[in-house]
Amino acid sequence: MSTLTLYTWKTPNGYKVSIFLELLELDYETKSLDISTNIQKEDWFLKLNPNGRIPTLVDHSTGITISETGAILQYLADTYDKAHRFSYPHGTKEYYLQLEILYFQMAGVGPMQGQANHFIIYAPEKIPYGITRYKNETKRLYSVVEEYLRRNQHNGPYLVGNHYSISDIAIFGWANSLGKIGIDIEQWPLVSQWFEKLRSFPEVQKGLSVPS
Amino acid sequence: MSTLTLYTWKTPNGYKVSIFLELLELDYETKSLDISTNIQKEDWFLKLNPNGRIPTLVDHSTGITISETGAILQYLADTYDKAHRFSYPHGTKEYYLQLEILYFQMAGVGPMQGQANHFIIYAPEKIPYGITRYKNETKRLYSVVEEYLRRNQHNGPYLVGNHYSISDIAIFGWANSLGKIGIDIEQWPLVSQWFEKLRSFPEVQKGLSVPS
Repeated sequence: MSTLTLYTWKTPNGYKVSIFLELLELDYETKSLDISTNIQKEDWFLKLNPNGRIPTLVDHSTGITISETGAILQYLADTYDKAHRFSYPHGTKEYYLQLEILYFQMAGVGPMQGQANHFIIYAPEKIPYGITRYKNETKRLYSVVEEYLRRNQHNGPYLVGNHYSISDIAIFGWANSLGKIGIDIEQWPLVSQWFEKLRSFPEVQKGLSVPS
Repeated sequence: MSTLTLYTWKTPNGYKVSIFLELLELDYETKSLDISTNIQKEDWFLKLNPNGRIPTLVDHSTGITISETGAILQYLADTYDKAHRFSYPHGTKEYYLQLEILYFQMAGVGPMQGQANHFIIYAPEKIPYGITRYKNETKRLYSVVEEYLRRNQHNGPYLVGNHYSISDIAIFGWANSLGKIGIDIEQWPLVSQWFEKLRSFPEVQKGLSVPS
């Protein structure tokens, strides 16, 4: 039995965690929760996450059950990335920039691009005000990602420091679905190069195929 | 000169940080940025925070400049709450629940209540779909807060463990402005008691008056 169980589905938030688990080369068991059936609102799952949203990770070796992708990525980095291949040591300057960008993704990019998805693809009525508002805000937020990459250009195509980190993984998860709302990533040259590079890794490809 | 400079305004996100600084009894200098003038989008401020949003904290003693309130609260807890009066030790079970709820606030409560504010108060046109969508989602999220409090009721009126933490401060900042969109906090008995208790602290009151 794997010590890690990931409850997930084929969404930007789900992919963040499966990509990180693949990069860390961890053995994990996947429980596929098709959210179109609302299974994530059933009592048994609400016990794991009262907010009724995927992904949720259970680590049987530590007894930790954790939701919210920013928290899951931090937990996995603390616990399974002691060599800091995809994170920075607690308390350093890079650690706090990594944290700032992680929260920027969680509080900005994710919710706003999520609302753009809703108004463009899923809302039962077409509401031009909602479509324009969230599409524009999503674009603005990726121009901020471009600026973060520009500031760190001397180090390489990383958001923070001299290697990839959980900030990159978090933003990649959402950048990967920009096409679906008709936003062309190539308008941001640095974001575009950074994205293609990350997408080329086999571990990232594997993470994007979970759950199969 | 204070070693801490807080760029802030009278908003739920601004209050989270000023309340925590007051609770930690830290000396800090406040720079008031009236966001209705768009001063937070000026070049000098974008150097501090490329996302152009308040609050931003500069710690002259460590050389750290940090934005996104979840990251600021974590930074302040790590640096100035070594006795863990308002946080839990790194790596513990309480630490990760604190983190989950902090991200839940940052990714859910803040953005969704923020959109409710927009559609109810600020949007130039009244769009019933937007008003209903975000008011309902805001209410759903506070019912999740109620559930977190219920699960920890044996410990007291805290979201995590046996004392207040940065999770409570983060959610308090937004619970404090529910009235402005006509949502009655009393529909959640535990949230309501928790809120009144927190509001009664002089440090919290002081934090809510920043910038003066």
